[in-house]
Amino acid sequence: MPDQLGTPLATPLFDHVALIGLGLIGSSLARGIRRKGIAQTITAIDSDTAVIERVKALGLADLATTDAVAGIAKADLVILCVPVGACNVVAEMIGSHLSQGAILSDVGSVKAAVVQAVSPHLPDHVHFIPAHPVAGTEYSGPDAGFSSLFKNRWCILTPPDDADSEAVNRLSLFWEALGANVELMSPQHHDLVLAVTSHLPHLIAYNIVGTAADLETVTQSEVIKFSAGGFRDFTRIAASDPTMWRDVFLNNREAVLEMLGRFTEDLALLQRAIRWGDGDTLFDTFTRTRAIRRGIIDLGQETAAPDFGRRTPEQDQ
Amino acid sequence: MPDQLGTPLATPLFDHVALIGLGLIGSSLARGIRRKGIAQTITAIDSDTAVIERVKALGLADLATTDAVAGIAKADLVILCVPVGACNVVAEMIGSHLSQGAILSDVGSVKAAVVQAVSPHLPDHVHFIPAHPVAGTEYSGPDAGFSSLFKNRWCILTPPDDADSEAVNRLSLFWEALGANVELMSPQHHDLVLAVTSHLPHLIAYNIVGTAADLETVTQSEVIKFSAGGFRDFTRIAASDPTMWRDVFLNNREAVLEMLGRFTEDLALLQRAIRWGDGDTLFDTFTRTRAIRRGIIDLGQETAAPDFGRRTPEQDQ
Repeated sequence: MPDQLGTPLATPLFDHVALIGLGLIGSSLARGIRRKGIAQTITAIDSDTAVIERVKALGLADLATTDAVAGIAKADLVILCVPVGACNVVAEMIGSHLSQGAILSDVGSVKAAVVQAVSPHLPDHVHFIPAHPVAGTEYSGPDAGFSSLFKNRWCILTPPDDADSEAVNRLSLFWEALGANVELMSPQHHDLVLAVTSHLPHLIAYNIVGTAADLETVTQSEVIKFSAGGFRDFTRIAASDPTMWRDVFLNNREAVLEMLGRFTEDLALLQRAIRWGDGDTLFDTFTRTRAIRRGIIDLGQETAAPDFGRRTPEQDQ
Repeated sequence: MPDQLGTPLATPLFDHVALIGLGLIGSSLARGIRRKGIAQTITAIDSDTAVIERVKALGLADLATTDAVAGIAKADLVILCVPVGACNVVAEMIGSHLSQGAILSDVGSVKAAVVQAVSPHLPDHVHFIPAHPVAGTEYSGPDAGFSSLFKNRWCILTPPDDADSEAVNRLSLFWEALGANVELMSPQHHDLVLAVTSHLPHLIAYNIVGTAADLETVTQSEVIKFSAGGFRDFTRIAASDPTMWRDVFLNNREAVLEMLGRFTEDLALLQRAIRWGDGDTLFDTFTRTRAIRRGIIDLGQETAAPDFGRRTPEQDQ
């Protein structure tokens, strides 16, 4: 198979990258950094000894340790790949031990709360450039990662206004080397955009799967059997990591509640149309939503294959 | 590629099958019936001359016509593959012209309303056995069909209590020949089950895509760009045929409103948990939903591949 990330870099971008948290994202980074030759040394740090054992068994890093302070000592790039709610504790632990001029970044799905949690713990000689790669799967842990996870996905950076432009530039090159497109915006705008493109969809998906599980008149085995009618699509994102998603909702409260309010209002309109047999309102709503999918496919963010390409239809004709 | 439907039948199950409506489902039936040798003759009937031209160009049937009365004259199996809201008109048109002993069936996503719409137009010498294959893609029209669409999917039959068991048996064999598993239930129970496994998911998906399209603070291009965070999953079913889905909601009102009420109640609970920072409620909800996806995968109704197998991850290790 051709390498989806292309040829390795001629010169590594960093001497020593330390990844804290080796779940889906952290382990994908480790694989991508190595494959692409982005750093000379990779250190994997995780508080869970079982994860460190897997990292060693999989050979994902040059060094693997539960000791964060020792692990980051010589790193010129440190990336927090932990749930958003854990950023505060980790930043407090490592802040004063970061090297002179090091870049600290993260991969959290929420940005304003992370900035607030991390910044107070950092000395002036560290460049904190928050980041969020909009990529993932429903699987978790060090075995779930793969090097091309970020290819053709967007990575949003939310540097502070007075950020060192050289640091922002190096971090952009880092993500571009992994195949991502980089976009800059404010933490607040990020949180609003992601509330609708990611957080609300997850909440809705978790909710409908929960509603289905609670029915008395329809058995769970019927829900499972007849899920191909649409329901199964929702179960994928409702299988995502519970800790990560709890932290997202606790840390992007205002934006999620705002989007949820709009969603509920719109749903009430459809509910009323169903109750009163207003077919035109239903038809109009169901028509205008097609254009958005077309846009997503045209931009390469989605497959045009029927059913997400789950099955390859036979060639009948 | 090996034929997903296996070897053709030794003896056709029917002499002459007439399909009314050659969209995704009708054209998939035409392809499957031919490939599997289920009928000696296939007649394709559609009120749209453009569809009939495509059916002829694709060679999907032995006869293709806009004349429903002539088309069904000699058929021993007639299947309505039209939107649920059109069943009444079509049944009225063809009812008195159906052959002695013919089986009439349909593929509608709603059953009680179809029974009510169709039954009054049928003579006693016709066996009406309603059916609903729980299968589909987000694409529509005669080009979108494929013969293996029903393979390993469920087809629900809702025969009346006094149905001819021989007719039910022949229709079951028909669907099994296409690779489907057949299940029998009452029209009312069908409508309740599908309200949660199919109708509510579609309504939610249409709604969230509509909500996203209406935002002022987040641009449409941002919604599209960052859709890989979860949103794009919803756009697939929100790209389904608007006419079909308008008719589903108009014809399964009570069950959909009941499920929607439960969904909204549950959502209010999550909303409150977010507002008050109740992480335990969020975590518990997000944990119990994983088991349902596991069940769907174990039953072969879903792929276990990450991200629906949209991309094949490189083998890194």
